[in-house]
Amino acid sequence: MRRPNPQLNRHGELIHLLSTEGLPREILLQILDTAQQFVGVNAREVKKVPLLRGKSVFNLFFENSTRTRTTFEIAATRLSADVFNLDIARSSTAKGETLLDTIANLSAMAADIFVVRHSESGAPYLIAQHVAPHVHVINAGDGRHAHPTQGLLDAYTIRHYKGDFSNLSVAIVGDVLHSRVARSDIHALTTLGCPDVRVVGPRTLVPSDLSHLGVRVCHSLEEGIRDCDVVIALRLQNERMSGALLPSSQEYFKSFGLTPQRLRWAKPDAIVMHPGPVNRGVEIDSSVVDGAQSVVLPQVTFGIAVRMAVMSILAGNEA
Amino acid sequence: MRRPNPQLNRHGELIHLLSTEGLPREILLQILDTAQQFVGVNAREVKKVPLLRGKSVFNLFFENSTRTRTTFEIAATRLSADVFNLDIARSSTAKGETLLDTIANLSAMAADIFVVRHSESGAPYLIAQHVAPHVHVINAGDGRHAHPTQGLLDAYTIRHYKGDFSNLSVAIVGDVLHSRVARSDIHALTTLGCPDVRVVGPRTLVPSDLSHLGVRVCHSLEEGIRDCDVVIALRLQNERMSGALLPSSQEYFKSFGLTPQRLRWAKPDAIVMHPGPVNRGVEIDSSVVDGAQSVVLPQVTFGIAVRMAVMSILAGNEA
Amino acid sequence: MRRPNPQLNRHGELIHLLSTEGLPREILLQILDTAQQFVGVNAREVKKVPLLRGKSVFNLFFENSTRTRTTFEIAATRLSADVFNLDIARSSTAKGETLLDTIANLSAMAADIFVVRHSESGAPYLIAQHVAPHVHVINAGDGRHAHPTQGLLDAYTIRHYKGDFSNLSVAIVGDVLHSRVARSDIHALTTLGCPDVRVVGPRTLVPSDLSHLGVRVCHSLEEGIRDCDVVIALRLQNERMSGALLPSSQEYFKSFGLTPQRLRWAKPDAIVMHPGPVNRGVEIDSSVVDGAQSVVLPQVTFGIAVRMAVMSILAGNEA
Repeated sequence: MRRPNPQLNRHGELIHLLSTEGLPREILLQILDTAQQFVGVNAREVKKVPLLRGKSVFNLFFENSTRTRTTFEIAATRLSADVFNLDIARSSTAKGETLLDTIANLSAMAADIFVVRHSESGAPYLIAQHVAPHVHVINAGDGRHAHPTQGLLDAYTIRHYKGDFSNLSVAIVGDVLHSRVARSDIHALTTLGCPDVRVVGPRTLVPSDLSHLGVRVCHSLEEGIRDCDVVIALRLQNERMSGALLPSSQEYFKSFGLTPQRLRWAKPDAIVMHPGPVNRGVEIDSSVVDGAQSVVLPQVTFGIAVRMAVMSILAGNEA
Repeated sequence: MRRPNPQLNRHGELIHLLSTEGLPREILLQILDTAQQFVGVNAREVKKVPLLRGKSVFNLFFENSTRTRTTFEIAATRLSADVFNLDIARSSTAKGETLLDTIANLSAMAADIFVVRHSESGAPYLIAQHVAPHVHVINAGDGRHAHPTQGLLDAYTIRHYKGDFSNLSVAIVGDVLHSRVARSDIHALTTLGCPDVRVVGPRTLVPSDLSHLGVRVCHSLEEGIRDCDVVIALRLQNERMSGALLPSSQEYFKSFGLTPQRLRWAKPDAIVMHPGPVNRGVEIDSSVVDGAQSVVLPQVTFGIAVRMAVMSILAGNEA
Repeated sequence: MRRPNPQLNRHGELIHLLSTEGLPREILLQILDTAQQFVGVNAREVKKVPLLRGKSVFNLFFENSTRTRTTFEIAATRLSADVFNLDIARSSTAKGETLLDTIANLSAMAADIFVVRHSESGAPYLIAQHVAPHVHVINAGDGRHAHPTQGLLDAYTIRHYKGDFSNLSVAIVGDVLHSRVARSDIHALTTLGCPDVRVVGPRTLVPSDLSHLGVRVCHSLEEGIRDCDVVIALRLQNERMSGALLPSSQEYFKSFGLTPQRLRWAKPDAIVMHPGPVNRGVEIDSSVVDGAQSVVLPQVTFGIAVRMAVMSILAGNEA
């Protein structure tokens, strides 16, 4: 017997968002469609709606990330929820309380949604297993494992500009080994029907075989992005890397940095994406970030709408 | 002539909550009855109400406590107040401003309620003496002195499960010497008519005579909790203790740790309480924390309702 | 051709508040008049209004200032805006993101107003040049350059107590060299028609000639405050000063400290102001701070109203 999917209830509805892996296509589309309702006509605004009035969203960031925390705080606020930011590093866990006791205590404080960022892969799963039935868990990044809202906002952005996934070639370029973004993108895009997802980077940063994920590996940038519709440049995670075999920033840029010249290998109307924050001149040239094909800033706006969609869907479902 | 009670106005109404000591029985009951209105029928929810809409609550935590600060932030938010968390340690006090100047300045910023946590006993009294007449002060813990909302939520929890105080035996077990919780519990419970309050712990942690407080001292756990209706286990305050005479965690657990076996000395339907965060295996065994008699998590929920009650009562009264 | 004023749009309406320098008299009066509507009849309250409901205000404090940040947070909240406090020091800038990338990203997050405090003069100008057209920037203090909302609240306070600027003598006493408050006061007051603004302090702290600003320099306190209507004592910025030529706190108080005796040199109905936090016994005697002529606390209350006025005006204008 298969272990049931902890993200879904027995009706197949979303009750936790832990990973894009294992989510059915219908759920992914429900999230993208819901997000679309929150984006204004000019695609620059995100509406404020009363859908979560009286609900409480707790930001539990065991690993600090001001940027990601802020996007969730904004998303919850635009749904009219009450948001509580817990400085977990300074809290009772420091007094010897266990993670699960902290979670149980917070669950008792009229919480509806926990947004969890943790340096250890799997921590949001553990939390989801132990929260009270009325609490929903969103993974805001766990170790190298998953960052599902980033995967979903990338899918949203691609659909916004390309309309459909069924004929697209998408190249994910860079430090795939350390990237939870890459993993979440791959699962979302292949489930949504993207026929050609390629992973591109040096052998030190990209595993040589990822065929079990349904993606093709290229160790040459030219081959990797040729005739692509979408190029996703990943951030070189300097702070997560160690070891003598890894490339320096300059070496990396020389071989894989996305310049205007190299971008011509992709289709003329290809869009360029990046999860941010950008290392200008490392994984991507400044003129590409600021260029006409870049959709880096719309990604940020869509990220608010996608997080609103996830929260509003979760709040409507019961464990 | 007696010095008038700084917590009450000349009509005997609550204008500051500084301690459970000196509060009349009617005020304690008013708080418990008001809190009861905020607890949902299943005792798991706390309602959101517009009682403090447009009012400003300032969390002034001179001593850090994420857990307690969060409970007040949630309580104020569920009353629809605006909450401002001041990182006092990093603020103007660091530029040489005096405590009273800081308080006067914040009073001028449209404040209605100050929630004060301070490492020095008495600091909330000093502040209450000097705030503008429209500002109410709540003591969220001052040194070893008092933690009145904890005392009140403990009283609420006991009434919720036992219905009435008039025939109860309550044992407070542990590090009474360092505990503002114990002091606040004792004053609340004796005023509410609890006929038998016992304080239980080793001679190094429990003063030998507390008869002036109307409580009995027991240095044996068996004698202390025998036939009790309520056992309140206190947290062993490792961080506040020093000195060679104090027990180690292991020694303490051997003599006073609350295990399932020892809990049988109390009445079969006795409830077990703890102010949190719990040191599992030090003052209490894990199986007791998670057992059928434990009401540790309901305490947390009721704590939100009790803090809402205190704030809503204060906001209705004038100095 | 003159470089157009970055604070105004082509209709002459306020779109950023970067400095009181260069602001037309009509704009200054618009701010003061708008602020007046937010102050309650007893001048102790500030009203809560729905003018910015659904708008997002971001506090971007690159330099920490709990007090100033809180006043902006309160002002925005009393306008019913959503406020997001970004701990910039811990955010992506630490991961190598540039200031302008951080700003572009935050602009994409449905932001309407940025409140910027920065240790470097000019940083808010740079930000205002690069934000998306729908975002307004408020300078909350940049290096030694400007602190325009302080200048405006000082002007508001003076008008509240003196009714009109046209016959007033105002003395600004103290550490003018390091003071962005002094600069912002001078530009606001001279533009508003104050005929006699004097700057008073030792030669080490006050430039000998400020005639280009339309103010008179006095190196004697008696001469400086004689027959003044308003005395503004500046904070001695110990933390910004260095060098052997600077006076000690005691030396400064001996020559320029504002005592009750010296205050008699000013008009009998002169008001005493201070931007806070006060160094009692350094730039001003305790009995003067707490005395009948002090309007230090009303300044704080008016500061909330003035910041509300600025935000509500900005939100109504388009770049």
